[in-house]
Amino acid sequence: MPHPLPTLETPLLRFIKETHTEFSRIDAGEVASYIPELGKANPDHFGIAVATTDGHVYEAGDTQVPFTIQSVSKAMVFALALDLLGAERVEAAIGVEPSGEAFNSIRLRADNKPFNAMVNAGAIACSGLIAESAGDEAFELIRTALGRFAGRDLGVDEAVFESERSTGDRNRAIAYLLRTYGGVVGDVDRLLDVYFRQCSVLVTARDLAVMGATFANHGVNPLTGDTVSSNYAVARTLAVMSSSGMYDFAGEWIYRVGVPAKSGVGGGILAALPSQLGLGTFSPRLDMHGNSVRGIRTCEAISEAFDLHMLSRRDDVRTCVVADYDFRTVPSKPGRQPHEQDILSARSGAIRAIELAGKLSFASMDYVTRRLTAPADVPEFLILNLHRVATITDAGLKLLTGLIKNQLPAGTTAVIAGVEATSPVAPQLKALREQGVRVRIFPTYDAAVEWAEDQVVYRHGGFSRIEVEADLSRQALLAGLSPQELADLSRLGTRVVFPAGTRIISANEPPARVYFLLRGMVSARSAGDVRLSTMIPGMVFGEMALIEQPRSTDVWADTEAVCVEVTADQFRAFQETHARAADRIMRNLAVLLAGRIRMATARIEMLTG
Amino acid sequence: MPHPLPTLETPLLRFIKETHTEFSRIDAGEVASYIPELGKANPDHFGIAVATTDGHVYEAGDTQVPFTIQSVSKAMVFALALDLLGAERVEAAIGVEPSGEAFNSIRLRADNKPFNAMVNAGAIACSGLIAESAGDEAFELIRTALGRFAGRDLGVDEAVFESERSTGDRNRAIAYLLRTYGGVVGDVDRLLDVYFRQCSVLVTARDLAVMGATFANHGVNPLTGDTVSSNYAVARTLAVMSSSGMYDFAGEWIYRVGVPAKSGVGGGILAALPSQLGLGTFSPRLDMHGNSVRGIRTCEAISEAFDLHMLSRRDDVRTCVVADYDFRTVPSKPGRQPHEQDILSARSGAIRAIELAGKLSFASMDYVTRRLTAPADVPEFLILNLHRVATITDAGLKLLTGLIKNQLPAGTTAVIAGVEATSPVAPQLKALREQGVRVRIFPTYDAAVEWAEDQVVYRHGGFSRIEVEADLSRQALLAGLSPQELADLSRLGTRVVFPAGTRIISANEPPARVYFLLRGMVSARSAGDVRLSTMIPGMVFGEMALIEQPRSTDVWADTEAVCVEVTADQFRAFQETHARAADRIMRNLAVLLAGRIRMATARIEMLTG
Repeated sequence: MPHPLPTLETPLLRFIKETHTEFSRIDAGEVASYIPELGKANPDHFGIAVATTDGHVYEAGDTQVPFTIQSVSKAMVFALALDLLGAERVEAAIGVEPSGEAFNSIRLRADNKPFNAMVNAGAIACSGLIAESAGDEAFELIRTALGRFAGRDLGVDEAVFESERSTGDRNRAIAYLLRTYGGVVGDVDRLLDVYFRQCSVLVTARDLAVMGATFANHGVNPLTGDTVSSNYAVARTLAVMSSSGMYDFAGEWIYRVGVPAKSGVGGGILAALPSQLGLGTFSPRLDMHGNSVRGIRTCEAISEAFDLHMLSRRDDVRTCVVADYDFRTVPSKPGRQPHEQDILSARSGAIRAIELAGKLSFASMDYVTRRLTAPADVPEFLILNLHRVATITDAGLKLLTGLIKNQLPAGTTAVIAGVEATSPVAPQLKALREQGVRVRIFPTYDAAVEWAEDQVVYRHGGFSRIEVEADLSRQALLAGLSPQELADLSRLGTRVVFPAGTRIISANEPPARVYFLLRGMVSARSAGDVRLSTMIPGMVFGEMALIEQPRSTDVWADTEAVCVEVTADQFRAFQETHARAADRIMRNLAVLLAGRIRMATARIEMLTG
Repeated sequence: MPHPLPTLETPLLRFIKETHTEFSRIDAGEVASYIPELGKANPDHFGIAVATTDGHVYEAGDTQVPFTIQSVSKAMVFALALDLLGAERVEAAIGVEPSGEAFNSIRLRADNKPFNAMVNAGAIACSGLIAESAGDEAFELIRTALGRFAGRDLGVDEAVFESERSTGDRNRAIAYLLRTYGGVVGDVDRLLDVYFRQCSVLVTARDLAVMGATFANHGVNPLTGDTVSSNYAVARTLAVMSSSGMYDFAGEWIYRVGVPAKSGVGGGILAALPSQLGLGTFSPRLDMHGNSVRGIRTCEAISEAFDLHMLSRRDDVRTCVVADYDFRTVPSKPGRQPHEQDILSARSGAIRAIELAGKLSFASMDYVTRRLTAPADVPEFLILNLHRVATITDAGLKLLTGLIKNQLPAGTTAVIAGVEATSPVAPQLKALREQGVRVRIFPTYDAAVEWAEDQVVYRHGGFSRIEVEADLSRQALLAGLSPQELADLSRLGTRVVFPAGTRIISANEPPARVYFLLRGMVSARSAGDVRLSTMIPGMVFGEMALIEQPRSTDVWADTEAVCVEVTADQFRAFQETHARAADRIMRNLAVLLAGRIRMATARIEMLTG
């Protein structure tokens, strides 16, 4: 470590600073001089900037020193041409093959087209296409586009421009050669003015990093949010940069560094790795290929330290499945009645839940689909729990859609769980439904399981029992009371009927009434609408009123519900006259609550265990 | 759709079959004839195979038809040479630059080295290096390596071999030219026999797919588990395939398809995308570049349909953080005593929990480190909940290590939660600790939070109160009893002292005793050792004995605990003589249980909401 580092410096910033310090010692290479004005650059300048796809910029050294962009502009201008003129036109005029020659080679392909847009011939043809369609506006278009990639307005170094123009005979030769074959049309000097100006635009290492991050962020500048380039133009430009971006060093580059990059004789290098980072370096000392020596070393060092080679990826698709079970292996939710539980256990294979995590990519989603290829694999209800899924790629979504639409048999209902409105994947799944894909989506896994279980229970007549009316003698809370005591209690109370879907008790109302359920089904639900328990005839709810305790949950009528309602006052009156019965009820209540605690404990177990 | 598809066919298999049907109609291109024996191939053969990195192979069409591997062998043999002879030696003898020329070009680089190992000159030099070191064993070495890539033993088509040998003058010329410059040494005919045999090895489209999957699976054959090639050799070979694998069509290939690939004049194409898939196609009709027409169309179609271009990646690093809160925003765990709660709320900033999900890559982990760069961001306890993390890349781990070792100030304790022994990231974090990185790792988030909270409570004297002994009058369960009644009850019971760490109650023991806590702290814990509640002096536990209900949880002494123990029989005796008091206790019990249910409900809320 060169010097004690301040605390709270991120590991990446620390690495960049150390790299800058280390490579500042390198003084190999020569400042470009074939353009006299470039020769004036300070050879010791050295800046490293990294811009992230979420818009943070790390900087070390001379990242704010302006220099001319030169050939680095070829990348952005090619992307601009693709969007402005259409891929067809541009790809017809300019090749995408590496030339295997120096950047300033005059050699064209056998069909007299430039090899690619990263060598001068291709770049001149590219600017030519823009000039052809935009006329006098061409340069301003280019300057604006470069500025949007950088996230700020960019100027021109007029001295360098004049110097390039007065010494640009080789490029003049290339342009005239191109015109011979119709590769460019119109006034060559006017075109070259656009090209020379484009090369003379002033940028900093920080600008190059942000430009790179805009490529890495699929064309959206992460600092400004401005959509600068289409996905197509971005991917294709990065492809040409990979094969031809570093002049005749390109093969070596993809071999050793593996990050698409473009260099310029001004001493700048722009590198961009999709969804990872943009990198900008500035150091005017160039090697024999015309690439910045320190810049190349920096790119190599960062790529190696953080394994950024675009072909070095190691994921195990299997990690996307964190759990996969039919309900033979997990207890169904508490709050089920014994007879419902029986139905569910008898048909435990009817529901299968697969919990996925991380990124659902082409490979990981294909892996998921392969878990469902044998008839035995496919349940009545397939629950895909996406609670832990952070991303679904387009390909992953396509395979998910195919699974639901074509792979699953008609008898299987697809259920997606764990997708709240705030979930990163919510919009994609919403779109899925809008495309008419038949899938049910639940915010929580619990809600999905409950719904699927209810379906199974319902299909097998599990809810029939609730339709028989039960009198108070079946109430557990009233166990041990004499017929007379029961009769007196029901005479005190009122018979009430709640339509399905009524909220009978609200969690925050005063505890004034207790309800004895005679017919139908009600459920206690949390604020998050999670079912905590289900009550059927013979059960009581709102019983906290008997001990003046606040309500803890809402209670909803799942079906039409018939109850005997007893107010706290009515119960106190009953207590006065029936001491023994009241004492017995209090004991029964303690027993009931104890049972409920056991259930809740089991549930917490299941959720945390 | 060509024909009704059987159900349970995965979307990818379906796509491959449809693609096969569609492209079977294409009959452009010519079977290679410069090697007479190749001219005999059936031009209508067409097979598509996709092998996944977890070892599944999808097949459509003639995937089992053998053909000669030809130039596809160059990829595996280059990887073999790198591992066998060392990168330095191989990279000194053979370049990695695209030649921009046809595969059979005799042109060498200015330094008289072959441009790369994917053109004949480079491949001959590569086999030459192996022959030079292995002598007569050279071919067997190569045949074995190819077989390990394919996962089966591979034979040779002697007829094609003879035909290549008798017509291989161009390759002879190349070999002699190489020897002029020391690019190969020794007997040229002997070397070319190795090379021609290597080209005559018989493979199928399925073999090529598995070979590709072996590259895609960082050198490990996903069918056999055999480690066939080093990471270095894999990444570098894929890099050369990217820049030069498709002859002078390479630039076009990376531009349009973006998947490293190698083709052969036998009609085969091998494509490999790291961590995604291996693709093998066979169709003998070739285009002007010598690439299989249907094969290229197939690669393009799959790349386009599933967005496989290696430069097309879209992740939002921010999705890796699914929650980030200090304890101002979330209630601390239930089961805390009010005075502990006060301490925690007063110091809510002391704990910060960041929940991560998916893949912790270079970019996503860097994003995490940037959330902790301001002094105000950094708590006493930083909990990173990795419960939802499926993968940590090497770069991600490096940044995580840097965060803990260098970024966090000395006053901050790093805590990693949600890593059970079975977690996919457990080995990496274990390694972290073995490297002496100071971090505490907990299997569950709850355990981590509880530990951190205990630390905070402890640091601020929160546990002092439990050291004062409280008499029975402070018992909530006994509220409303007269001093006389209290005295009688304690005379019935026994005073017991439990050392810290004793299990006082076991969940499955009969409910024979109730305990009134006078001093110390005990906690009710689930089988999974999750703390359900904490009891301090003035509280009761084991109270289910009063209503003959089974135990629901274990109860452990967190500190030395002093209690009054009352057996069920003793309590019944008390009931006989103190009816009013017993009634009052029963009512108090119901109230206690009600409170506990509210707590449990809140907890379930927190866990499921």
